[in-house]
Amino acid sequence: MQKHTPPDLPPMKDLTTDNITDNVHTINSSCPDPRTKFLFERLVSHLHDFARETRLSIAEWEAAIKFLVDVGKISTDVRHEFILLSDVLGLSLLVDAIDHPKLPGSTEGTVLGPFHTQDAHHVDAGHHISRDPDGEPLLAVCTVKDTQGRPIPGVSVDVWETDSKGFYDVQYADRSSPDGRAILDSDSDGIVHFNAIVPVPYPIPHDGPVGQLLAKLKRHPYRPSHMHFMFKKEGYDRLITALYLRGDPYETSDAVFGVKESLVVNLSRAGDVEGLAEKYGVSPDTKLLQYDFVLNTVEEARKAREEASLQEIERQGGKLRLQDGLLIPK
Amino acid sequence: MQKHTPPDLPPMKDLTTDNITDNVHTINSSCPDPRTKFLFERLVSHLHDFARETRLSIAEWEAAIKFLVDVGKISTDVRHEFILLSDVLGLSLLVDAIDHPKLPGSTEGTVLGPFHTQDAHHVDAGHHISRDPDGEPLLAVCTVKDTQGRPIPGVSVDVWETDSKGFYDVQYADRSSPDGRAILDSDSDGIVHFNAIVPVPYPIPHDGPVGQLLAKLKRHPYRPSHMHFMFKKEGYDRLITALYLRGDPYETSDAVFGVKESLVVNLSRAGDVEGLAEKYGVSPDTKLLQYDFVLNTVEEARKAREEASLQEIERQGGKLRLQDGLLIPK
Repeated sequence: MQKHTPPDLPPMKDLTTDNITDNVHTINSSCPDPRTKFLFERLVSHLHDFARETRLSIAEWEAAIKFLVDVGKISTDVRHEFILLSDVLGLSLLVDAIDHPKLPGSTEGTVLGPFHTQDAHHVDAGHHISRDPDGEPLLAVCTVKDTQGRPIPGVSVDVWETDSKGFYDVQYADRSSPDGRAILDSDSDGIVHFNAIVPVPYPIPHDGPVGQLLAKLKRHPYRPSHMHFMFKKEGYDRLITALYLRGDPYETSDAVFGVKESLVVNLSRAGDVEGLAEKYGVSPDTKLLQYDFVLNTVEEARKAREEASLQEIERQGGKLRLQDGLLIPK
Repeated sequence: MQKHTPPDLPPMKDLTTDNITDNVHTINSSCPDPRTKFLFERLVSHLHDFARETRLSIAEWEAAIKFLVDVGKISTDVRHEFILLSDVLGLSLLVDAIDHPKLPGSTEGTVLGPFHTQDAHHVDAGHHISRDPDGEPLLAVCTVKDTQGRPIPGVSVDVWETDSKGFYDVQYADRSSPDGRAILDSDSDGIVHFNAIVPVPYPIPHDGPVGQLLAKLKRHPYRPSHMHFMFKKEGYDRLITALYLRGDPYETSDAVFGVKESLVVNLSRAGDVEGLAEKYGVSPDTKLLQYDFVLNTVEEARKAREEASLQEIERQGGKLRLQDGLLIPK
C-alpha cells in the first residue's frame, strides 16, 4: 500500500464540538495558496458555527446531504440547478455585487441566471431575435456609453429573453437553433437596436429539488418580466445586467433577487418618439424599450473593486491585505 | 399562464451587498415551520457573511458551483461523495458530537463514514466476518454495558472494516455479497465476540472531486486503522463509533477527524488472557481486541441533549427556545 507521510502538524485527537474547528484549520494550514487557505478557514468556521448555533441534528444533516446530491444529479449542461440554488438564496446577486461594485452613474449589474448560452448568433442591427408569433412585438433602441457620456461603438451586446409562454429556448427538448437570443454590435453612435417581444413573468424551473425547497419555504418561483443583457468590449468591465418592466406583479418579490430600481423601465410606444417608427420600420403602436447603458472601463472597475476591498479590510480591523486583487490574511 | 399571488411581504428592490441578507430573510419569513425558517435564517446569514468577508469573486463562485455539481454527479448508492465532503471539512464529526452528547463514563461516538451498508448478514457469535485470506487474524471479545455497569444482552452490534488492502467490500465492482461486515447480538453477559482481521490504514476514495480538494489543500487522504461499530437496542440511544489502533501513522491526522483518545486501543494477544485462546478456539498468538462499550439509555441521551441545548440557549443570550428537542427563536 502506498503511504502518504503524515503532515508535520500538531497532533489532533479527542475532537469535541469546541476544538474541532481549530483542528480543521490546523490540518488545512499546509495549503500553499494563501487565498484558498483563507477561503477554507472562513468556510469551515461559518459551516461549524451554523451547526453549533442551530444544534443541527443528524436527521437534518442527512436531509441536507440528500438534497445536495439531488441538486447535483438533476444538473446538466442546460439545467444549472446549483446556480438556481445560489440564486434563490440571494448568493448570486451578492457575489455579483461584490465583484462588480459600480461607480455612480454607471449601469448596475444583476444576476446572470441559468439560461445564458454560448451559441447565440451574431446578428445585424434591427434583427428579430424572437421567432415566437404569439409574442407582443417590441422595438429596443438603446445606447451604450462610457462614464463620461461618450458613445462606445463596437460593443458586443448579448441579449436573451423567454418566449411568450415564459420559456427560454433551451427549455424545449426539441430546440434546433438559438431563439429569443442574439449578439449585436453597438454602432458608431453607441446605438444598439433590435426587434424582440415584450418580456413576460415566468417561473424558474421548479420541478426539481430547488422548486421543492421554495415550496417548503412557502415562496413562489416567479421572476418579474425582464430581458437579459451582457456587454463586452476590450478595455471595459464586462457588464451582466437585465431590464425589468415596471408594474410587474413580481417586481418586488423576484424569486432570485435580481431587481434593482435603476433597472426598472417603463415601456413606451414607437409612435411616442417623433420619426422613430418610420426610421426603424415598425408600426407606431409597437412597444418601445429605450435605455442608456453606461459601462465602466477595466481600470474604473479595478479601482472601485480595490476601494470596496479596502473598506472591507478596515471593517475587519486591518487583519487582511490585498494580493492580486483578492483578500488574504496579513 | 398560471399565476402565483406574490406574498404579502414588504417590497424588495435595489438589493445591495448590505441589504440583500435581510431581504432574503424577509422573503423566507413566510415559511410555516419555525425550525426550517430558523435553519435558513442562519444558513443564509453565514453564506452571505462568508461571501462578504472574503469578497468572494465570480470566478471563485463559479469554481465552487462546478465543484458541487461534480460532487453530486459522482455520487451513487455506494459512493457517498457529499458525506465524504462533510467528513473532510469536520462537519460530520461535529454534527455527530452535537446530536450525541455523551455522559461521563459512556462510550464516545464518531463518524459513521460513507461505507456502512444495510445488507450485512446477521451472524452467530464467533463468526468470521472477513473472507480475506491475507488479513492478519483478530479475535474481538467486547462487552456492552449500561452506565450503571450492568451488561446489556440482545444489543444488535453492526461491525464493518476494510480488507487487508484497505478497501471495503462495496468498493469492488464485482461484490456479490457482504464481506468484512456483519451484525451480531450481545449475549446474556453483554458479551459480543467475533473473528475478523487486524484493521489497516487506508485512503478515503480520492479519485474524485473531494480527493482533488484534499490535494489542493495539501492534505493526505488517509484514515488510521480502525473498525466501525453501531449499537442498537430498544430503549438505548443508538451508538455509532469506531475503535482505532494506537501507534498508527495517521492516528493524529485522520483525514475525516474521527479519532478520539477514548477510542484508541492497544491490541494484545489471545494467549495473554488465561484460558481465552482455548475458550474461543484460536491460537494463543492471535491478535486480541477487547473493549467495554457503555451505552446511554434514550432518556439519558435526551437529558444530555437537552442540557447541551440549554447551554447553547444561554450562550446565545436566551433568544432561543426548545421545541420538540430542537432550537428555534423565541
